[in-house]
Amino acid sequence: MSQAVKRLHHLSRHIDGSNSADIGLIGLAVMGQNLILNMNDNGFVVCAYNRTTSKVDHFLENEAKGTKIIGAHSIEELCSKLKRPRKVMLLVKAGDAVDNFIEQLLPYLEEGDIIIDGGNSHFPDSIRRTEYLEKKGLLFVGSGVSGGEEGARYGPSLMPGGSNAAWPHIKPIFQSISAKADGEPCCDWVGETGAGHYVKMVHNGIEYGDMQLITEVYQIMKEGLGLNHDEMAAVFEEWNKGELDSFLIEITRDILKFKDTDGTPLVEKIRDTAGQKGTGKWTAIDSLDRGIPVTLIGEAVYSRCLSALKEERTRASKILQGPKDAKFTGDKKKFLDQLGQALYASKIVSYAQGFMLMRQAAKENNWKLNNAGIALMWRGGCIIRSVFLGKIKDAYTTNPELENLLFDPFFQEATAKAQESWRAVIANAVLLGIPTPALSTALNFYDGLRHEKLPANLLQAQRDYFGAHTYELLDQPGKWVHTNWTGRGGNVSASTYLA
Amino acid sequence: MSQAVKRLHHLSRHIDGSNSADIGLIGLAVMGQNLILNMNDNGFVVCAYNRTTSKVDHFLENEAKGTKIIGAHSIEELCSKLKRPRKVMLLVKAGDAVDNFIEQLLPYLEEGDIIIDGGNSHFPDSIRRTEYLEKKGLLFVGSGVSGGEEGARYGPSLMPGGSNAAWPHIKPIFQSISAKADGEPCCDWVGETGAGHYVKMVHNGIEYGDMQLITEVYQIMKEGLGLNHDEMAAVFEEWNKGELDSFLIEITRDILKFKDTDGTPLVEKIRDTAGQKGTGKWTAIDSLDRGIPVTLIGEAVYSRCLSALKEERTRASKILQGPKDAKFTGDKKKFLDQLGQALYASKIVSYAQGFMLMRQAAKENNWKLNNAGIALMWRGGCIIRSVFLGKIKDAYTTNPELENLLFDPFFQEATAKAQESWRAVIANAVLLGIPTPALSTALNFYDGLRHEKLPANLLQAQRDYFGAHTYELLDQPGKWVHTNWTGRGGNVSASTYLA
Repeated sequence: MSQAVKRLHHLSRHIDGSNSADIGLIGLAVMGQNLILNMNDNGFVVCAYNRTTSKVDHFLENEAKGTKIIGAHSIEELCSKLKRPRKVMLLVKAGDAVDNFIEQLLPYLEEGDIIIDGGNSHFPDSIRRTEYLEKKGLLFVGSGVSGGEEGARYGPSLMPGGSNAAWPHIKPIFQSISAKADGEPCCDWVGETGAGHYVKMVHNGIEYGDMQLITEVYQIMKEGLGLNHDEMAAVFEEWNKGELDSFLIEITRDILKFKDTDGTPLVEKIRDTAGQKGTGKWTAIDSLDRGIPVTLIGEAVYSRCLSALKEERTRASKILQGPKDAKFTGDKKKFLDQLGQALYASKIVSYAQGFMLMRQAAKENNWKLNNAGIALMWRGGCIIRSVFLGKIKDAYTTNPELENLLFDPFFQEATAKAQESWRAVIANAVLLGIPTPALSTALNFYDGLRHEKLPANLLQAQRDYFGAHTYELLDQPGKWVHTNWTGRGGNVSASTYLA
Repeated sequence: MSQAVKRLHHLSRHIDGSNSADIGLIGLAVMGQNLILNMNDNGFVVCAYNRTTSKVDHFLENEAKGTKIIGAHSIEELCSKLKRPRKVMLLVKAGDAVDNFIEQLLPYLEEGDIIIDGGNSHFPDSIRRTEYLEKKGLLFVGSGVSGGEEGARYGPSLMPGGSNAAWPHIKPIFQSISAKADGEPCCDWVGETGAGHYVKMVHNGIEYGDMQLITEVYQIMKEGLGLNHDEMAAVFEEWNKGELDSFLIEITRDILKFKDTDGTPLVEKIRDTAGQKGTGKWTAIDSLDRGIPVTLIGEAVYSRCLSALKEERTRASKILQGPKDAKFTGDKKKFLDQLGQALYASKIVSYAQGFMLMRQAAKENNWKLNNAGIALMWRGGCIIRSVFLGKIKDAYTTNPELENLLFDPFFQEATAKAQESWRAVIANAVLLGIPTPALSTALNFYDGLRHEKLPANLLQAQRDYFGAHTYELLDQPGKWVHTNWTGRGGNVSASTYLA
């Protein structure tokens, strides 16, 4: 660090650095600007920097006019204006840009200074960066930031992780600017190295799942029950007053109500294809890698993939047969209640799966994750914010060692109450020919989990039959046996390289 | 190559190399031994080598006694005994062992010689090895080998890909030793670089799917219909005479029939947990990476993950509620017919998804895959061999440009005929509380594919609402619009780094 220190002493003689800013922020896209304004509102002095420096001037003369926000036209200047330990937050595109700015910052930072990455970085990068910077005597924080533009401006959900020693220094800023839920900040320290971005990734995966579930419910209402958009909006409005109360239900209500200039629902004019190259996919892949059945997010990602095949689907729609004369003939009002229950139970499963995944990742990475804290961070500010997350927080507060969210008495009772409705909804959708991949996989997971005995014994027998893979005896755990099922083949076990 | 050539000239003076073997094979585990014996049966002279050379002697004195098989006690000796261009096949553990043997072989090979990897290598490794060896003037083949020990001995399914120039040289051996179906060898050239191992990977993923489907059907028969094992075996016996005729159905019949020494079905004594660290997982991850909805394999892998959580499931079984007094009350015989239809239709979907994935991979890797040839390679010799694959071969032979297997008239009719049964089976399973993740996801995919309009329009509206992501207009393709859904927020689009 000595070279950097020398350089800083040199700098302090040449730049009118007042060392007055509490934090520096690099990257003046909407998210960066809004976080700065939010910090300013909360009494912190922020120094803003952007690679294209005209953006700094523009920001200071417009959005930041009349505030305490200051600017910098170089990394050097930025660092010279920060109180020690320096805190520099990056809001730039995930990937190389983050590494590039880290390298640019290094000459101007001193031991104990903190670099915070607030972008949507993949967690292995944050693990790597924490280790890299700690070796240089610096501290690194990879922080999930959720809530979109509005969240950034008025209170995001923040999920910081990385160098534990950084937390006391950034805590006042982060907990001030974050959303509040039930009076508590939606920001707490997540854990070591990449834990912050990992939890943000799972958050995004769950967001994929929640959105997919809502779209399936909408399709059932529209196609199965023949509801119009105002009727659908009314159902979401009603749901938003109860256990489903959440941001995504609320905006779905707004969207369904929204009429285009010609008086028809705007949502029907939107092309029904969605991208899926981001964090949802990462979560699904990560769950496969760790061997945790996060089926709902998996199906949500695959559903986006299928939505993207619009032309192929259009051709398929003219060829593939659906049920003949399928019509819903039951009690619509009752069915809508059941639909709400199915949505709620599926959501519970999805969050249970997400927490299963985080538990496994924590184990593999030696992170001490605080489940109640995570639920609280998601409780407000972010896209998946909901009353429901308060219940999850309660569950993990009551029992921090809870094995599975579904085992918590509240959720156990909720699924017990919902399950008959859930079954009715899926059985109806299946008979009506309406796809419900996420609702279905949630119920299948629920039914699978509550089966002490699944049919994988047959699968193991098959593997032993054709590949001599051996199987474990149910009443003699640890004892692996091969059977000559045909009376023909030998008794050798297969080599390990055979699937 | 000149150094290698010199070395070879040197060698030829010192080793009694007769240059008489048609092919060399490294790795004398069961698979390697059986492939050698198979080649010998077909008139080829094979030179066997193993790192632990005592295995070579043991093999020559026992299994290979009285054959034309010869042995080598060093890589040097092995290479000196091969006809040119030399063909050396590796049957060793996938991973570093393959690279190590390649390096050991290099000094003794000449331009145009061929290294064949017959292990379960991951396709990116085969892509890398093809490029590496071609740069050295050698040829590389990564070949899927399926069929287990018995297949290797009496006719495996072989899926070779890599250096195109290698094919004419190995074709006579490969097509002689492979399984035959309808008089044709279950081996053809798959395509460039990693195509052989890629197709083998998808084969294994489909194998995961087929096995999962059968176990679900077994669970429904056992738990839902209360059939005993002889009754179940009889159903599989019956199915094996029709459109479901296949190796896996056949062995399932055998397994269900098999009684332990105490007279009870052995299959029920096997622990119901399965591993999933292999090629099935690779296929699922690959499909997510390429954005192709290979949902059935995905669910099959996740089902193995859930099966592995035996202790958690055991605790869940005491806590989580299932349907009350659920009993199947319909016509069992009719339901069994429907079950067969559901299994068949789900299988069609799974293969359709597999071919969708291979099409995308071929596009991204510049492989010219021959779909009919792939179906033929899988038609016999391997674990998923079936009459059904003959129909797939027919479909792609008739129309090599077939967009989707489900669009082929035969499969279109088959699913049209099956779909009502399929729905009845799943609706019943859902109401009975029996998990059917693979059967369900298959139907959901079918119903999704035949929907010209999926509800992703709502999803795009949500993304635009909270993240200003913009959406595409249905009637103006390419036109992306942002709407201020609330009347509050601004009209800026979100930065790309936000999910």
